[in-house]
Amino acid sequence: MTVPFEPFEHLKKDFAILNQIVNDEPLVYLDNAATTQKPEAVLQALETYYHTSNANVHRGVHTLAERATSQYERSREVVRAFIHASETAEVLFTRGTTTSLNWVARSFGEKVIEPGHEILISYMEHHSNIIPWQQLAKKKNAKLIYIELTEDGQLDLEDVKNKITDKTKIVSLTHVSNVLGVVNPIKQISDWIHEQNGYLVVDGAQAVPHMPVDVQALDADFYAFSGHKMLGPTGIGVLYGKRALLEQMEPIEFGGEMIDFVEEQDSTWKELPWKFEAGTPNIAGGIGLAAAIHYLNNIGMENIVQHEREIVEYIMPKLEAIEGVTLFGPKDVAHRTGVISFNIDGIHPHDVATAMDMEGVAVRAGHHCAQPLMTYLNQPATARASFYLYNTKADADKFVEAIIATKEFFLNGLN
Amino acid sequence: MTVPFEPFEHLKKDFAILNQIVNDEPLVYLDNAATTQKPEAVLQALETYYHTSNANVHRGVHTLAERATSQYERSREVVRAFIHASETAEVLFTRGTTTSLNWVARSFGEKVIEPGHEILISYMEHHSNIIPWQQLAKKKNAKLIYIELTEDGQLDLEDVKNKITDKTKIVSLTHVSNVLGVVNPIKQISDWIHEQNGYLVVDGAQAVPHMPVDVQALDADFYAFSGHKMLGPTGIGVLYGKRALLEQMEPIEFGGEMIDFVEEQDSTWKELPWKFEAGTPNIAGGIGLAAAIHYLNNIGMENIVQHEREIVEYIMPKLEAIEGVTLFGPKDVAHRTGVISFNIDGIHPHDVATAMDMEGVAVRAGHHCAQPLMTYLNQPATARASFYLYNTKADADKFVEAIIATKEFFLNGLN
Repeated sequence: MTVPFEPFEHLKKDFAILNQIVNDEPLVYLDNAATTQKPEAVLQALETYYHTSNANVHRGVHTLAERATSQYERSREVVRAFIHASETAEVLFTRGTTTSLNWVARSFGEKVIEPGHEILISYMEHHSNIIPWQQLAKKKNAKLIYIELTEDGQLDLEDVKNKITDKTKIVSLTHVSNVLGVVNPIKQISDWIHEQNGYLVVDGAQAVPHMPVDVQALDADFYAFSGHKMLGPTGIGVLYGKRALLEQMEPIEFGGEMIDFVEEQDSTWKELPWKFEAGTPNIAGGIGLAAAIHYLNNIGMENIVQHEREIVEYIMPKLEAIEGVTLFGPKDVAHRTGVISFNIDGIHPHDVATAMDMEGVAVRAGHHCAQPLMTYLNQPATARASFYLYNTKADADKFVEAIIATKEFFLNGLN
Repeated sequence: MTVPFEPFEHLKKDFAILNQIVNDEPLVYLDNAATTQKPEAVLQALETYYHTSNANVHRGVHTLAERATSQYERSREVVRAFIHASETAEVLFTRGTTTSLNWVARSFGEKVIEPGHEILISYMEHHSNIIPWQQLAKKKNAKLIYIELTEDGQLDLEDVKNKITDKTKIVSLTHVSNVLGVVNPIKQISDWIHEQNGYLVVDGAQAVPHMPVDVQALDADFYAFSGHKMLGPTGIGVLYGKRALLEQMEPIEFGGEMIDFVEEQDSTWKELPWKFEAGTPNIAGGIGLAAAIHYLNNIGMENIVQHEREIVEYIMPKLEAIEGVTLFGPKDVAHRTGVISFNIDGIHPHDVATAMDMEGVAVRAGHHCAQPLMTYLNQPATARASFYLYNTKADADKFVEAIIATKEFFLNGLN
């Protein structure tokens, strides 16, 4: 057997956590859609910040406060450049994608949605891009409408086109599905909704870590993502929004750092982006996210796309060849990232994940925070492997072997 | 001159950042009310988590996911024990005090406040404990009423007593003022408001890091604080709430991990505390906060109270002896923590902070996110030194010397 070429093999040394034994087997971490591991460069950035510069930002004139402020605001510029926003005023630091989407629904949504308006989402959305809109629709007497999927799990574009009307005020879609791995044609949909003077919100949690994203080229009105899914620390995320829209919005949280003047009975807000950032931010988180972006940029997002595509191309035929394995999502790798959801006939996905963990292979099982999609697919749950830049074809082979071993263990009692 | 006994001198070695030269002088960090430094044990906890156990929590069955979940939930138990909550269901992880207070105002406040109700706060509140109530009062046509202060900057208890009536639904007070250092008699006020069937919200950001806090003994209905002000990482905080109240409240953010069932048009919520924790939490932040609490517990909170009190007792006469220095807050150290706000006649506080930074002494200057208090004190701003467990009497001496040098530099042109 020829050993396949592994262009990113050397990256594993940057991720101490990957070089460990789990259940007597070398760890193969394939749960990257849930969260990713952190390279030493990111941990080093956190440590250096806490060892040299830690202070509260924006309000201090002493040396550490100036250092911390400058590093934190430089991190915002790193994020801006990475997603091609036109200015840092449009880049808000949040706790993560969930907070970002909730802010849009709560502040922008409550402002623009009126009774009878329609909000359009799809059956492949994550709960964080469903429930905020459900609650908004209920409160405003608006309609929440779902876009149908094609048989192989892509957005049904005919259905999108038909459902976008002059009643549609907001379309909120995931850029990449966390279950199906499918990449949605955001720009096309952006054009359609803007023709109707509506707004496009994008859940980019599974896209920004895995491909180049240009929020201006997509013409997204809002775009949300998380640091921890792209090699960054937990507790930091981003909400991009167009300046004109952010300016109309009320802040969601009130407190220090986001005000100009506080009088006894009322207050005025600071300019963007600080208007939305009440209280002490996750300073180290922002700095760690910037370090993660530097790491990704050094590799190159196009190379990451290519790497994940090669792994998926390499593994798909092997998976298809295993009897009793059902794969979800499009077959065409051009339309997907390194997320592969699957089930094995006759074995509950939780048992699959538990058995694969005994082989050292970490996959996730469950509804993946996408219960409406599970209902739509008529599956109680799926197992899911999700690859990232540090995964290799050797990991993919180990994954295939673990599926076969799992199947034999449960169905034939062999081990 | 005798060198004073420094019981905590040895702690400085745990804080690499403190052992540095700033502007050619050894750093004396006295901006602890803004944020505190982190001991190696906390940084080590973050690194160990990311090196061995990082995974998304609650939803995974693989080994790393189980490790991460167990460490994260054990951290919640550490917090519970530290503040003496009766169960972990009452301990919600948030982004920080600001988020915690906003959640109470938005979810609990919107539920219980009706037109004509009164919300009682004081003139010494931080903006994060003012603006959420202003906005709530405006929205609900309720009244926001301020408690007066005594001449030396304590709550006027007669005024509190008079202003708590059967119209008072919520009293929201800081436990310790971030400007005056004064400790408020929370339990007394708790009794008064509960007699009127109202609720007590406490901003504990400046208390939990500096003294033993028992939320049950205080009988607080809600109690908020931040990790970064108590040796923990940025981006993590806590909202304690009584179970009966949290159960009545609607979640503030919607998304993954906080649901039982999501159907197309509506959803049901998980039990406490997870009902409030949508999306991937700041896992490393929670674990780092627990490490900070271990560090504090090893020293003992009573010892920290004593240490800060000794420093304040040591320094107060020296400060009072400097002509032209005005001190704010009570003289009696039994009523205060290690926060000392001051002004020097004829020198703007920002200039004071800048000049002291040239001596290596980091103090803060400004309104300290307490503009109504500045108005009340008739000061545009103050300078503020805030001590913590790693500060010594030698730091206090350096601080006094820097004040004298600053005064001479600006007023006499000497340096």
